Amino acid sequence: MNRTGRLYGLGVGPGDPELLTLKALRLLKSAAVVAYFVAKGKKGNAFGIIEAHLDAGQERLPLVYPVTTEALEPPLSYEAIIAAFYDEAAQSVARHLDAGRDVAVICEGDPFFYGSYMYLHDRLAARFDTEVVPGVCSMLGGAAVLGAPLVYRNQSLSVLSGVLPEDELRERLATADAAVVMKLGRNFDKVRRVLEQLGLAERALYVERATMANQRIVPLADVDPMASPYFSLLVVPGQKWQR
Amino acid sequence: MNRTGRLYGLGVGPGDPELLTLKALRLLKSAAVVAYFVAKGKKGNAFGIIEAHLDAGQERLPLVYPVTTEALEPPLSYEAIIAAFYDEAAQSVARHLDAGRDVAVICEGDPFFYGSYMYLHDRLAARFDTEVVPGVCSMLGGAAVLGAPLVYRNQSLSVLSGVLPEDELRERLATADAAVVMKLGRNFDKVRRVLEQLGLAERALYVERATMANQRIVPLADVDPMASPYFSLLVVPGQKWQR
Repeated sequence: MNRTGRLYGLGVGPGDPELLTLKALRLLKSAAVVAYFVAKGKKGNAFGIIEAHLDAGQERLPLVYPVTTEALEPPLSYEAIIAAFYDEAAQSVARHLDAGRDVAVICEGDPFFYGSYMYLHDRLAARFDTEVVPGVCSMLGGAAVLGAPLVYRNQSLSVLSGVLPEDELRERLATADAAVVMKLGRNFDKVRRVLEQLGLAERALYVERATMANQRIVPLADVDPMASPYFSLLVVPGQKWQR
Repeated sequence: MNRTGRLYGLGVGPGDPELLTLKALRLLKSAAVVAYFVAKGKKGNAFGIIEAHLDAGQERLPLVYPVTTEALEPPLSYEAIIAAFYDEAAQSVARHLDAGRDVAVICEGDPFFYGSYMYLHDRLAARFDTEVVPGVCSMLGGAAVLGAPLVYRNQSLSVLSGVLPEDELRERLATADAAVVMKLGRNFDKVRRVLEQLGLAERALYVERATMANQRIVPLADVDPMASPYFSLLVVPGQKWQR
């Protein structure tokens, strides 16, 4: 009787190691294998958050991205390369599960909120028992450190990627009560231009690496568009409800 | 030299007491006063989540809502009553802060994501030192227990209140890549009708009291619109990214 292992998707929060939940910590400590996505040559943000909690007997399974940018020269295709990579990563994880070992995949922020764990989940959830532990997402980490209440009462919140084409960004931001723009990096200049055009620049707040040790809050006008990291975000808080 | 107390807004997560963060737990335990919003005659969800961690020496400060529904007969106005209530609640909290006692306001989910703490923050942050600890919001708790990855790659997420007028709901849902509709309750029937009109009913998932002990996942077609609680939500996950 071989019991297969259980697959856990553990949100480990936006960066501050104290923003780990009690549940993620318990399951992390009990997992035989701890897997994490990571760029080549890096330790990985998610791994850094939980490293201190691991013991020597737990197997580390780094899943190393084969590429670090989506901008590749043809005939290379980011989509094709990354899909093949997720297939392989799912197989590495599945080998442990088939052998009866529980695997905890740790995810910065929340596993189902733009997390790479989703691609493993989609490939493995039909075959294995899974449990997803939600985490504090970067957007809420950002709002907290900016001291910016996000949405009041019945306001709508639009969560957008800075990668979107300028027209779509403009359209979506124009109709938003409140908005968060993630994945800025090299898209920062475009996003700031749109905010200025819509008269939203005054309301917008910017933070880099929210809740991490090297967090940086900068007035929108002072951000160097060439130096904005991927882990930065913009918050356009909803209008305060006051009477 | 009187030092004033510090105001903490602590997100305590969506319901499962284990979804508390290490940071919220530490600050909760060190606060002289623990304040929480609660309906008359109830214990309160947030208080129930953290109750086991309090010790006898910590003062409890319940902030009891004067009304339980927004639908009041004129000349009563929900907005006016609730604004006066938040003014009073802020004064109760301020008395402790002025006396040098730290006050932790506990909030279900996240403090800045539709949390009542926001109304205290807006009234007190200019006068007192504040710190907001983000929490796991109900929307991510819901996605996790539904096993539903929310947003892939550069998809946009629209977070909507079920209270919105039917036309606005239709418009916002029609252009959403992925959506979460909160505050269903008596708005359920209207929201389901709009999802059906837009052909989104097949993709939509429904959960009541996600991660709480009495959590309930029900197929959309089987939900009794008269019995849907306030703490229910609908998730329309983004289209899977697969190649």
